Amino acid sequence: MSDTNDRLVQLEIDVLAENDKQAAKNRQYFEENSILALNLVSSPGSGKTTLLCETINKLKSSLNLAVIEGDQQTLNDAERIRSTGCRAIQVNTGEGCHLDASMIDGACRQLKPQPHSVLFIENVGNLVCPAAFDLGEDCKVAVLSITEGEDKPIKYPYMFQASRLMILNKIDLLPYLNFDINKCVEYAKRVNPDIEVIQLSATSSEGMQQWCDWISNRFKQINKK
Amino acid sequence: MSDTNDRLVQLEIDVLAENDKQAAKNRQYFEENSILALNLVSSPGSGKTTLLCETINKLKSSLNLAVIEGDQQTLNDAERIRSTGCRAIQVNTGEGCHLDASMIDGACRQLKPQPHSVLFIENVGNLVCPAAFDLGEDCKVAVLSITEGEDKPIKYPYMFQASRLMILNKIDLLPYLNFDINKCVEYAKRVNPDIEVIQLSATSSEGMQQWCDWISNRFKQINKK
Repeated sequence: MSDTNDRLVQLEIDVLAENDKQAAKNRQYFEENSILALNLVSSPGSGKTTLLCETINKLKSSLNLAVIEGDQQTLNDAERIRSTGCRAIQVNTGEGCHLDASMIDGACRQLKPQPHSVLFIENVGNLVCPAAFDLGEDCKVAVLSITEGEDKPIKYPYMFQASRLMILNKIDLLPYLNFDINKCVEYAKRVNPDIEVIQLSATSSEGMQQWCDWISNRFKQINKK
Repeated sequence: MSDTNDRLVQLEIDVLAENDKQAAKNRQYFEENSILALNLVSSPGSGKTTLLCETINKLKSSLNLAVIEGDQQTLNDAERIRSTGCRAIQVNTGEGCHLDASMIDGACRQLKPQPHSVLFIENVGNLVCPAAFDLGEDCKVAVLSITEGEDKPIKYPYMFQASRLMILNKIDLLPYLNFDINKCVEYAKRVNPDIEVIQLSATSSEGMQQWCDWISNRFKQINKK
């Protein structure tokens, strides 16, 4: 077993090193074209696609937008995004548990996001594996539904360490749950003191303006460089 | 990249083959000792630990119970289980995204579940990777919180193909959500026609009796062999 484990660790390093090389190329491409690429990561069912649809509806008159959708199977999410009028491409990972940088490269070649645009990447629903894979994005945004419990940042610390922003989604359900927002934020800051936090509900719209402002500000910073 | 991919596929086969060997040994150990091992799999935050605590409270007077808790980090869940009076051991996987058969072997050597008992294994919260890893369990039980959306069985089909039972948890929240139970069951049966389904709420207790009866029946079948 230990020989296999040694080879596994070595190969994991190889795979991550190759991924990082492609991620660096993606990052250069995004920077040269002033594309703000946001990598949305979460558990399955945190509400990323609904959040994206609502975000697109609020921002599409002021910003150029495009979406890369990652899922093990189905084209459902890309179709939901396209129904907002936004361009989207679906990447099916099959048995794979995360998007990698070469998938993003391939998707961008087809999708051709416009210069000076925002590219949302919705990763496979998985709070573990996507943490290790740099896609060349500006930053990761961790979406946590408050139905999942406030302990997730300390139980899955790598994802919250890797993210610049934590979105607490579905806060319209707060009256029906035992969820301690302060404790959740404290846990997130314990694993990542710099993490920013936005509370919102994509269905009730509460907090959506703050999130859209966050995107617009981040987009301005990218375009200042 | 393709050379690395070839090696990766080969190594994945090696790792799964080694895992399957240990899983066969675990299965033999469970069968020889009439231990019903149930592998609970789900996304993070589906409510597995709360479900287990309530299940233990209902079953502990009639069955011998023990729990193996899997998480990337923290000992919280094993402590929650122990507060019910049930014996539990925590396995921290670190950066790992699933439990494997050798972890279960190691945990059983310490935990020493009693003959003629039920062993609950709470896997790492991840709807993708644990599907591929046989732990030697009697069966996998997929727990899906209805807050996650009804499309999860077709978006993460491997997990629902690998499970004998799907528990739809948190049905007390049904009045506050857009969740179509019939559609969810149809999706689950589409990827696994034999899958059984139980709807319940671990917090309101609705459906808990059906789940406890399911466990007791499965335990009787094991002990008949």
